[in-house]
Amino acid sequence: MDTPRYRTALIVGAGPGFSASFARLCIRAGLNVALAARNTAKLAEFCADTGASAYPCDARDPHDVAGLFDAVEARQGTPDLVLYNAAGRVRGPVVDLDPESVRQSIEVSAFGAFLVAQQAARRMLPKRHGAIVLTGATAGVKGFANSSAFAMGKFALRGLAQSLARELSPQGIHVAHIVIDGGIRSEAWPDPETAPDSTLDPAAIAETCWHVLHQHRSAWSWEVEVRPWVERF
Amino acid sequence: MDTPRYRTALIVGAGPGFSASFARLCIRAGLNVALAARNTAKLAEFCADTGASAYPCDARDPHDVAGLFDAVEARQGTPDLVLYNAAGRVRGPVVDLDPESVRQSIEVSAFGAFLVAQQAARRMLPKRHGAIVLTGATAGVKGFANSSAFAMGKFALRGLAQSLARELSPQGIHVAHIVIDGGIRSEAWPDPETAPDSTLDPAAIAETCWHVLHQHRSAWSWEVEVRPWVERF
Amino acid sequence: MDTPRYRTALIVGAGPGFSASFARLCIRAGLNVALAARNTAKLAEFCADTGASAYPCDARDPHDVAGLFDAVEARQGTPDLVLYNAAGRVRGPVVDLDPESVRQSIEVSAFGAFLVAQQAARRMLPKRHGAIVLTGATAGVKGFANSSAFAMGKFALRGLAQSLARELSPQGIHVAHIVIDGGIRSEAWPDPETAPDSTLDPAAIAETCWHVLHQHRSAWSWEVEVRPWVERF
Amino acid sequence: MDTPRYRTALIVGAGPGFSASFARLCIRAGLNVALAARNTAKLAEFCADTGASAYPCDARDPHDVAGLFDAVEARQGTPDLVLYNAAGRVRGPVVDLDPESVRQSIEVSAFGAFLVAQQAARRMLPKRHGAIVLTGATAGVKGFANSSAFAMGKFALRGLAQSLARELSPQGIHVAHIVIDGGIRSEAWPDPETAPDSTLDPAAIAETCWHVLHQHRSAWSWEVEVRPWVERF
Repeated sequence: MDTPRYRTALIVGAGPGFSASFARLCIRAGLNVALAARNTAKLAEFCADTGASAYPCDARDPHDVAGLFDAVEARQGTPDLVLYNAAGRVRGPVVDLDPESVRQSIEVSAFGAFLVAQQAARRMLPKRHGAIVLTGATAGVKGFANSSAFAMGKFALRGLAQSLARELSPQGIHVAHIVIDGGIRSEAWPDPETAPDSTLDPAAIAETCWHVLHQHRSAWSWEVEVRPWVERF
Repeated sequence: MDTPRYRTALIVGAGPGFSASFARLCIRAGLNVALAARNTAKLAEFCADTGASAYPCDARDPHDVAGLFDAVEARQGTPDLVLYNAAGRVRGPVVDLDPESVRQSIEVSAFGAFLVAQQAARRMLPKRHGAIVLTGATAGVKGFANSSAFAMGKFALRGLAQSLARELSPQGIHVAHIVIDGGIRSEAWPDPETAPDSTLDPAAIAETCWHVLHQHRSAWSWEVEVRPWVERF
Repeated sequence: MDTPRYRTALIVGAGPGFSASFARLCIRAGLNVALAARNTAKLAEFCADTGASAYPCDARDPHDVAGLFDAVEARQGTPDLVLYNAAGRVRGPVVDLDPESVRQSIEVSAFGAFLVAQQAARRMLPKRHGAIVLTGATAGVKGFANSSAFAMGKFALRGLAQSLARELSPQGIHVAHIVIDGGIRSEAWPDPETAPDSTLDPAAIAETCWHVLHQHRSAWSWEVEVRPWVERF
Repeated sequence: MDTPRYRTALIVGAGPGFSASFARLCIRAGLNVALAARNTAKLAEFCADTGASAYPCDARDPHDVAGLFDAVEARQGTPDLVLYNAAGRVRGPVVDLDPESVRQSIEVSAFGAFLVAQQAARRMLPKRHGAIVLTGATAGVKGFANSSAFAMGKFALRGLAQSLARELSPQGIHVAHIVIDGGIRSEAWPDPETAPDSTLDPAAIAETCWHVLHQHRSAWSWEVEVRPWVERF
């Protein structure tokens, strides 16, 4: 394997699924891996298995996010590969939604991504090196009925990604928006035997994300959509 | 003129420009017009001239927004045509933006629109009649460099509009997102003599908005973009 | 009514439905109306009723199209409002399609539009006045399964419209792409009683098209989508 | 290296640049490689170097295309990886374009792609295995001024790609549209010293294309855009 392009990966909104698969790819490639979540208890086993480190963080809080970057920097090195994976899922008819839940949902899906991207960019720009990845969803491209809260958050995230791509790419920072169009396979949501590979294998999403992060800078993608072969779109 | 399709218009984020032109069209058509803004002092002259009524309201506050609808309902009738026109404009490189300003910007551009749409939908759905209009911008379709905060807010607003269109249209509520692509003509920003009509005449935007609101329900538009003939896009 | 903005309308691919409704609006506004179709026999009754004139034309043939414009010019004046409404509908699995039918389908949907737009632009540019309207379809925005031929034609038409809008708008020519998303009501395809207005009333499409053609040049739309209130999208 | 997923690659519209880089990747992975072009003389050196075989073919001719597939099948095996790379570049103001050149341009950019995809699909569907790649361009996503002919062809190609993706993916055929947004580096168009990697390295495009073709079927991309880090978009 060549020298790794990145040294320290920070994943905010870490959990099982895509982010765990992505963390494993990073570890296999020799990166230091930091995982942040509101509740780090659920990350303990993964960290014990893989050597990743966990940090508690409320991604909607500017001070928390700044502190997270400082802590990772001190313990594992300055993050040069940052993945924002948190999302606020609130669904229901617009007339039934609780305003406070909607506010928080937007903050988790989009404002937290801004805070993380800001801290990341501040550290990456002086070196003109690094990558910021944002986990997108179909809801960020298509606003469904009974999904106004989630649509607001994921559309906002896509707007952030596109704006950052235009702003930061020419300064050497690769910004990538990975649009996951379909259900991600998990223990709770296994792949149906009658429709094989109709749910996204999280390892497969991670592989495409990894490829994008290692593209030559003369041919960068800022947005890549992945969906199961049988998914209607 | 035919019987007006709407009886009471509520414009949130009322000011000069497009919203004032739109209010004038409503008044000319015989609607009761309510204008809401954080600071109603600036609306006084317009109200005196036209007979519109002004209401103070912080669109980001759920209680304020609910109170606004109650007040308008009591004084002028239940709003069956609601325009959300507020926007939080914060610009600058992502590394320089103040997080609190960004949070408020998203809340003004998108969360406030959700609150207003929710109150509107609650009143319109029982009658299966009404229209919700959201003032969009190019920033909601294209995320520009140094515009991450505004892009987040306006993309979120577009996601809200699309989601509401899919949810509410089949229930008889017309949802429209008017994308204004260019600078709006004003006293502060007059149309340049050397490039006539290179700024949008607010009355022209209002005319198109008015047309959309009066489309036959068998041929509704949910999004219409307007731009000066000479604008690059 | 104000002085009409346009004097002579030419509709290529004229038939019943949207184009007939649009022709009626033009006639009511005092325009000279010319209708072109491969087979003009089907236009005879409409022309007798309305005073419109019919011209035979194969829109895929450069000489036919040039001749059409010359003939209309000589008899009814130079067309300053041109609508291209022809489309080549070929459907089926990609493996089953007849290549020659596909070629012709693309030529009718898109190449003919180019030929007509070219002749129109040559006559409009010297006066920096006129409008070119292209009848679009959902298939031009979304490529459906078993619809590759129609998708190619309608995507190409949209590409033409967008390119012409960028090229001709700053020279005073309004280019408009009307995306019809749904089935158009007709004798053969009546509106279902159980789902009122679930098919597009052709007169309603024509009204929106007419509005777009009369927008102030400081706020032009180049694309407007219309769909029934209950249509899924 | 794992067993190759594909055995025989056919590249239509082969030349230098992206298609040559892609052919090299295929050869390195052990695939039989067939190259088709109108004029095969220019492919002689590449074939001598690499062991690829060249076939003359006018991609706009149904019989030529069917014959091409038969010939490759007989000599090198049934193509299970097919890349369509031909494009008809005609530019200029709409009023100046030669209709016959425009017709041919659309046929090369889009109709030929249809013919090739049809032959490919006929051979791939029985095995529910294979991939069809279409080389896209910015012009297929954005219609520029003075580019109506190229916009029609490349929009049509994108419509074809999207339609085929919806139709063939659930039958096991991976359809991919690679949107190249920028100038491709070549001897004639070298990368400028003052703006390194501002032109796309064809090998870098090929790497991303290769990745897409090897995605797990639970996470396929149907469209990937690549552009230089400094390219404005």
